[in-house]
Amino acid sequence: MKAQVLHKYDPEMKADVWVTGEELPNPKIEKASDVIVKIGAAGVCRTDMGHENAGWIEEVGKDVTGFKKGDAVILHPKVSGTGGTCLDCRRGNDMHAEDPIFAGLNVKHGGYSELLQTSVRNLIKIPKVLGPIDVAPFSDAGLTAYRVVKKATRHLLPGENCVIIGAGGLGHIAIQCMKAMCAANIIVVEKAKAPLEHAMELGADHGVLIDGNEIEKVKELTKGKGAEAVIDFVGEKGSTPMGIKMTKATGTFYIVGYGEEIRVLAIDMIDQEKSIVGSLVGTWAELYELMELADKGLVKLSMKEYKLEEANKALHDLNDGKIKGRAVLVP
Amino acid sequence: MKAQVLHKYDPEMKADVWVTGEELPNPKIEKASDVIVKIGAAGVCRTDMGHENAGWIEEVGKDVTGFKKGDAVILHPKVSGTGGTCLDCRRGNDMHAEDPIFAGLNVKHGGYSELLQTSVRNLIKIPKVLGPIDVAPFSDAGLTAYRVVKKATRHLLPGENCVIIGAGGLGHIAIQCMKAMCAANIIVVEKAKAPLEHAMELGADHGVLIDGNEIEKVKELTKGKGAEAVIDFVGEKGSTPMGIKMTKATGTFYIVGYGEEIRVLAIDMIDQEKSIVGSLVGTWAELYELMELADKGLVKLSMKEYKLEEANKALHDLNDGKIKGRAVLVP
Amino acid sequence: MKAQVLHKYDPEMKADVWVTGEELPNPKIEKASDVIVKIGAAGVCRTDMGHENAGWIEEVGKDVTGFKKGDAVILHPKVSGTGGTCLDCRRGNDMHAEDPIFAGLNVKHGGYSELLQTSVRNLIKIPKVLGPIDVAPFSDAGLTAYRVVKKATRHLLPGENCVIIGAGGLGHIAIQCMKAMCAANIIVVEKAKAPLEHAMELGADHGVLIDGNEIEKVKELTKGKGAEAVIDFVGEKGSTPMGIKMTKATGTFYIVGYGEEIRVLAIDMIDQEKSIVGSLVGTWAELYELMELADKGLVKLSMKEYKLEEANKALHDLNDGKIKGRAVLVP
Amino acid sequence: MKAQVLHKYDPEMKADVWVTGEELPNPKIEKASDVIVKIGAAGVCRTDMGHENAGWIEEVGKDVTGFKKGDAVILHPKVSGTGGTCLDCRRGNDMHAEDPIFAGLNVKHGGYSELLQTSVRNLIKIPKVLGPIDVAPFSDAGLTAYRVVKKATRHLLPGENCVIIGAGGLGHIAIQCMKAMCAANIIVVEKAKAPLEHAMELGADHGVLIDGNEIEKVKELTKGKGAEAVIDFVGEKGSTPMGIKMTKATGTFYIVGYGEEIRVLAIDMIDQEKSIVGSLVGTWAELYELMELADKGLVKLSMKEYKLEEANKALHDLNDGKIKGRAVLVP
Repeated sequence: MKAQVLHKYDPEMKADVWVTGEELPNPKIEKASDVIVKIGAAGVCRTDMGHENAGWIEEVGKDVTGFKKGDAVILHPKVSGTGGTCLDCRRGNDMHAEDPIFAGLNVKHGGYSELLQTSVRNLIKIPKVLGPIDVAPFSDAGLTAYRVVKKATRHLLPGENCVIIGAGGLGHIAIQCMKAMCAANIIVVEKAKAPLEHAMELGADHGVLIDGNEIEKVKELTKGKGAEAVIDFVGEKGSTPMGIKMTKATGTFYIVGYGEEIRVLAIDMIDQEKSIVGSLVGTWAELYELMELADKGLVKLSMKEYKLEEANKALHDLNDGKIKGRAVLVP
Repeated sequence: MKAQVLHKYDPEMKADVWVTGEELPNPKIEKASDVIVKIGAAGVCRTDMGHENAGWIEEVGKDVTGFKKGDAVILHPKVSGTGGTCLDCRRGNDMHAEDPIFAGLNVKHGGYSELLQTSVRNLIKIPKVLGPIDVAPFSDAGLTAYRVVKKATRHLLPGENCVIIGAGGLGHIAIQCMKAMCAANIIVVEKAKAPLEHAMELGADHGVLIDGNEIEKVKELTKGKGAEAVIDFVGEKGSTPMGIKMTKATGTFYIVGYGEEIRVLAIDMIDQEKSIVGSLVGTWAELYELMELADKGLVKLSMKEYKLEEANKALHDLNDGKIKGRAVLVP
Repeated sequence: MKAQVLHKYDPEMKADVWVTGEELPNPKIEKASDVIVKIGAAGVCRTDMGHENAGWIEEVGKDVTGFKKGDAVILHPKVSGTGGTCLDCRRGNDMHAEDPIFAGLNVKHGGYSELLQTSVRNLIKIPKVLGPIDVAPFSDAGLTAYRVVKKATRHLLPGENCVIIGAGGLGHIAIQCMKAMCAANIIVVEKAKAPLEHAMELGADHGVLIDGNEIEKVKELTKGKGAEAVIDFVGEKGSTPMGIKMTKATGTFYIVGYGEEIRVLAIDMIDQEKSIVGSLVGTWAELYELMELADKGLVKLSMKEYKLEEANKALHDLNDGKIKGRAVLVP
Repeated sequence: MKAQVLHKYDPEMKADVWVTGEELPNPKIEKASDVIVKIGAAGVCRTDMGHENAGWIEEVGKDVTGFKKGDAVILHPKVSGTGGTCLDCRRGNDMHAEDPIFAGLNVKHGGYSELLQTSVRNLIKIPKVLGPIDVAPFSDAGLTAYRVVKKATRHLLPGENCVIIGAGGLGHIAIQCMKAMCAANIIVVEKAKAPLEHAMELGADHGVLIDGNEIEKVKELTKGKGAEAVIDFVGEKGSTPMGIKMTKATGTFYIVGYGEEIRVLAIDMIDQEKSIVGSLVGTWAELYELMELADKGLVKLSMKEYKLEEANKALHDLNDGKIKGRAVLVP
């Protein structure tokens, strides 16, 4: 099969570059629960070789039930090497399972290829009205946004506020999920005008530009108290102290983006009983839930298509800020 | 002041009738936390004398803080005679508090009058864009619908289903709350066509007419499994066995309407791990949350105005099925 | 291998009887995730052929990881034919999974034999200080008691009350779990004196004999209000109306034992906001948790050993009320 | 009445010192919900004038119900100036209420006196078998320990682990509450041997001395993974980075003690989905729950009595480390 093979990390582009069009042997069924998927779309991320994948089943292992050749599927990016038998898997907490295998990271290659070997435990059928191209980036970017929104909506009540810091790739999905899943006011905090305008179009109640007065503005919008939930998709350049200050007493600061050290006085956490909650990519069941949202038309992705052999072009465009939303490789 | 005073229960109309335009002495401040409210609107219910009230503050007791003459307020229908010091009050569970006082039921009169004595603990300020006439029936009918929807939305996930039995006075509010607070599919089950059409206009995903095949239809709409939540606003003429059958394994049947005996085999509850949850009017904090939903324009009431002295006409119209939504008395 | 093979259901004994010492072909590995277990102990239940099993691993399928020949294991009684890929499995809710297989019920034979074919998904390693004989009946009777107690302890606070109806096979485990997992007062309601005394020895705070005044007695012990949780392990001869009456407003009646129809007026459920919750055997993860409790010495089983070939004697003794706790077959 | 009046803050002792035996005018009922309490015992804290109080009711305001002269009561340290009408009060979250009044801190004097003016909203009746002297320090030190333990026990399951850092005044209460309320393993981490031994006597499962290898030891005791809950009562000298490292993936680090800045890389919070939760003194309802635990004999305080006029001696002894547990002033 044809595949993009990792060449080297290019420090100038801050990205990996690939040798295009390499011929690799086709992957094979090894375990009885293995599945070979023909890639239909693969989201492009700077530092891996394809973990946002969707396509059609090509072949299934002998113990696989419920899936057959031709089924359109999206692939959860992570799977436990235990085959789903460790305690975390058994409690539904599969993204913290033992012996994790992550497509495109700790296995030889991911979805920048024609075929991919995966486990039946990674698969979710794509709702009928959608195809692989519509959903591939949901499997990581979308799923990460969905999971943190789900956590926040479990406690956000009508009349409460949610601040979303960063309205880019993850943020624009989070706004849509938040709007679909609770009635809290959505306040988007952004450093750039274009994504802020996009956020308002997607249904945010208020947009706040980072201009030095952003904390005061959020306080004004929240009766001087801050927001019950603050979700930080940035995690650098001072977003974490800003976000913690925007959080109401007894509220929660969710941290998703990373880059900096979180620093906060213990007394400030205690006196106001604030919480800081780290949030990662979601579980298999949460990807299922996200597919249901997408199927209902409640969440849509912005993306740009490239042919598999244009992988390096996609990377360059990504680096040059030419892509709104997500780049996706198609066969 | 002028008031409608209870005359007798009329068995033919299944309602109380009133002597119109009686003169009663004005109510007075007794406790330091008492408040006198000038009634601006009172929802009409068949069996009481006004527990759905909103208006403007006329006078406050000497220890009242945060409210002043002229403030527009909605009144929670229930208050604890303990002044908010019993354990249920202290846990926020005020509608199960000790020594309950219910406007228009276990006190001399309610809101079918010019003035009403109440406690500061019953009051919530009405959001600025709304007035007493827009919100009065929220204080009981609306609050009951909101509370049960809130319970269900705490567990309903995208892709899951909620059946609402009865799309009348409470049901039409419930549909709007449900749509605002979660992404579950809403299936409305009704015996009459008009409210079913209204339900679809309000955003229900599916409408099912009660015609003998309603259980099969709900099963079809839920992949043969039933709904994760079923809310029964009817509670009579077989709605409870129907609703329990429409409930998925591990799902919950919420009962709000009453009239019949619930009967279910223990083995059916156990084998499928179903739950039956009784739900009543909500707490003060939940009425606050509902006002926030209304303020955002997410929930609207259908109602018809009558002058206070037309109370008996309102009752007759109610009895004759001439009122869509709620009748409201205004001064 | 030797096995007890079902002969017929004996209506007089209300139990199955077996042909003893039949020779059956040894079970074989079929799926890559299959495991053959050498039975070390099997709890005796009247109406099946062994679903409470523990033993040692004899052979593992080619994709099994984490287990090897000789490991002492307890077997969860249920497994999904999907191999753990359906939505319920993925959410940790494996006992409601699709395509269920229940040892000794809907497969040819269970643990009344020398060897048993099962799935790696049924296995939990037994803590080192215990052996198969100490734990076998935990896999169903114990797990059912644990699950319902866990549900109740999630909401029971210090100063609150839990009524346990029935202090027999399940009840005596429930009392121990309850005592280990929360600080609520435990009130045991029983029709017989001996199990009531046993309950008090196990740490119940109060024992109430069913003598016609049991509801009043529970009310006295709970300041006239009833208990926040009532767990009914009986489910017949009027235990369900009794238990619902013993439940406090906003409390929960958990139903585990079955036999009768639950009947309650809708208005009584609503006015007091009571809940009725059906509870079944627990999940794999809950069996793991129960093993941890047993390992800490916090829960102990009463049982009596019989040799495998004495199966019919065990059944007769069970029928004659000669067994305190659980009968267990050993090789 | 006699009272200890604040003289000055003594930087050497790091404590306030008092002028002893001042005569002050008796406090009076001002609001209809006010209560005058005759102090029976007051816990000694270095930086205030008595916020851990218990005693007997001397006089009640005209709208007070449910309490009368002579009732033995413990006083919650905080009350809202709103009289319990703000949203936080109405949700049971009274320790975050608006316009807070804290006995001995932001009002003229607290419990180092013969009489104290307070609100009916601060009062809880003391269970019959206990007296003011047995419970006074529960109202702050005990309540803070109880609240954080309650939060942790809501998610701690059998087989899971809880690390308690610091087994002093709060820690020794926390261990007892933890043991009463869940079955998790309790691992106490301490820098001094005497409190560690005390912790083991109170029922801790493991004691770990802070000697440079404490993180490794906690990892060993938790299968290499860390604890599901870590409660830090110290909050200085490096306890927070230590505690966060002892926390398992998806676990929670509860911070109660303060003094230092919490510093953690965003990526470490995200990758392991850890949470940091600040915890303060509890609510009125939680003090009620703690009284129930004490009444059952499940939690006991270590304390030493001093006469009111010996307040400075108590402070000196506290400063010199001569007091095990809590100093308490009695009339």
